[in-house]
Amino acid sequence: MSETASITYPIGHLHQFVVRMFAHFGVPEDDARLAADVLARADLRGIDSHGVARLHTYFDMLTLSRINPRPNIKIIRESPSTATVDGDNGLGLVVGPKANKIAMDKADAVGSGWVSVSNTNHYGIAGYYVLEALKRDQIGWAMTNTTKLVAPLWGAERMLGTNPIAIAFPGKVEPAIVIDMATSACAYGKIEIAKRRNDTIPRGWAIDRLGGDAENPNDMIDGGAMLPLGSFREMGGHKGYCLASMVDILCCVLSGANWGPWAPPFALRQEIPKRSVGKGIGHFFGAMRIDAFIDPDEFKKQIDDWIRTFRATKPMPGSPGVVIPGDPEREAERERAVSGVPVLMPVVDDLRDIAARIGAKFD
Amino acid sequence: MSETASITYPIGHLHQFVVRMFAHFGVPEDDARLAADVLARADLRGIDSHGVARLHTYFDMLTLSRINPRPNIKIIRESPSTATVDGDNGLGLVVGPKANKIAMDKADAVGSGWVSVSNTNHYGIAGYYVLEALKRDQIGWAMTNTTKLVAPLWGAERMLGTNPIAIAFPGKVEPAIVIDMATSACAYGKIEIAKRRNDTIPRGWAIDRLGGDAENPNDMIDGGAMLPLGSFREMGGHKGYCLASMVDILCCVLSGANWGPWAPPFALRQEIPKRSVGKGIGHFFGAMRIDAFIDPDEFKKQIDDWIRTFRATKPMPGSPGVVIPGDPEREAERERAVSGVPVLMPVVDDLRDIAARIGAKFD
Repeated sequence: MSETASITYPIGHLHQFVVRMFAHFGVPEDDARLAADVLARADLRGIDSHGVARLHTYFDMLTLSRINPRPNIKIIRESPSTATVDGDNGLGLVVGPKANKIAMDKADAVGSGWVSVSNTNHYGIAGYYVLEALKRDQIGWAMTNTTKLVAPLWGAERMLGTNPIAIAFPGKVEPAIVIDMATSACAYGKIEIAKRRNDTIPRGWAIDRLGGDAENPNDMIDGGAMLPLGSFREMGGHKGYCLASMVDILCCVLSGANWGPWAPPFALRQEIPKRSVGKGIGHFFGAMRIDAFIDPDEFKKQIDDWIRTFRATKPMPGSPGVVIPGDPEREAERERAVSGVPVLMPVVDDLRDIAARIGAKFD
Repeated sequence: MSETASITYPIGHLHQFVVRMFAHFGVPEDDARLAADVLARADLRGIDSHGVARLHTYFDMLTLSRINPRPNIKIIRESPSTATVDGDNGLGLVVGPKANKIAMDKADAVGSGWVSVSNTNHYGIAGYYVLEALKRDQIGWAMTNTTKLVAPLWGAERMLGTNPIAIAFPGKVEPAIVIDMATSACAYGKIEIAKRRNDTIPRGWAIDRLGGDAENPNDMIDGGAMLPLGSFREMGGHKGYCLASMVDILCCVLSGANWGPWAPPFALRQEIPKRSVGKGIGHFFGAMRIDAFIDPDEFKKQIDDWIRTFRATKPMPGSPGVVIPGDPEREAERERAVSGVPVLMPVVDDLRDIAARIGAKFD
């Protein structure tokens, strides 16, 4: 079977099945819908690694009671513009949207809102949260730590996650600028793809278990590490390390979650860290009301101008020319909302396996 | 004369001369001291490109009345946790600290403060501002746009500045983690050094005027461009472009300053941009009270643990091992506070030239 064999489903079909699965574990219906919304957004936007492809992991974690299906999500400290939230070990797909809403509500009240979250789990794509803020004419920020995969510059072991940063800015006529980026040099998924294809990987993506360049993807996977954005000192690898550290501290040290190498894994096969320095993993959300700084109409017109100016950049020969952040995901979303989401066969098999175990059907 | 010939001065001597120069142009004494504090901090921390090495440019700009020595710095819009500031074309070294103070005061009042600034000029090192926030037990953020030097990914011309991001986190026993990084692959100063030494530059730092790899530093300097952090698509160059864009929009579109390629230059020899889309350049400051999220003592103990954990990372063979962000600058500061600041002869000549023109003395 070809690596790209897939079945295409309408997004509603996938969404419905995801709700069904979460409901099976006693997740309240509104929460199950919210969680399904977050996963669906990833599948629509073409970020396949973060959509239904992860569903079996959620299934496993819930089956083993490693995630609390009915969390009591609490604000444990707050000020008019800030809050710290304890997610009670709930689904990140539920804790994340609720904590993000607290940030947005605070922005509505006092101009901006900033929320650090502990005791939570994998929250899907960071982009979901900043798209929510756009609906309120707010600039949203979202970050999360993740299980260790990345070495700090000049280190030879995994100490940080791929720790993404997202932020979005609305245009008036032009679509929003949506930034959603990991702070590692490449995505882990690219290393997995190279492994399946028996390809080598470029120098700068990863190191082996001794700290040398990993050319074979297995050398990274078997005890090696990914490199931070910038890869090497000469190319700014310290900067990617700084960004990943910033995300780690805002999400975890500020909230009381497990930082750095102590983040609990989001997969059954990964080992549990030797130390626990807090609760669960952590997220960080921000929201700023645009009209707390400038007339929103003026802001959006300038963003339109910004977008057109950057699209008109003289292109690098042999390249597609300058792309606006968020363009590829928006184009995927437009197409997939109409034509459906192609799901790779191994993922279809996962969904069918889940269906069989919860007494449901997935064709 | 060797490229590294220098004279070492006590920091007080340099500070006094800087105050004297700004006073010559009618900058109020308190403002002149503030500006000198910012420059001195760069020289102490070993960021020589941003200290007295820039003084002649400030001198030139003030001589030509391109900077307002007595600005009326105004809040033009605000909410409890945000403000937009018009710097009235003052020195960035004065507008920056005052806008940063507004952010910190708002954080004291409502947990966090966020200030976007237009109509300002070069503000020195971003690190200065976040060190100020540490004095109040706050997490400070600082960003600024700068004159265009960097191409967006897949572009072949300068469209963005080196747009730095700074943020700092205090430890209890350990020193603070201080992140202060440009969003380009390398610093422009490294390209200038390669030029003086007739060295080539590594692939990934810069492109020539046609968009091809610049191996000769002159190919970048003469109409080429620097590359964003990550350099190429495969190595995450779109991420450096995203970060530079984020800084550009927060500093400029949000405040009403000149964004992207329209940022006015901070040097007489550079051409004035074809369009003006706002006022001056822009900054963005944030401040978050630590106790608005978590007990500060607990936070600092965890930062100490974080620092020790990361210092203990297995080192990459042949490297110095993992460094904590801010270590090199802090070590420079400790040494230079005692031994003085070595100033390269061309900069000494600049200072002597200024002295002669303002009727002062600089030995």
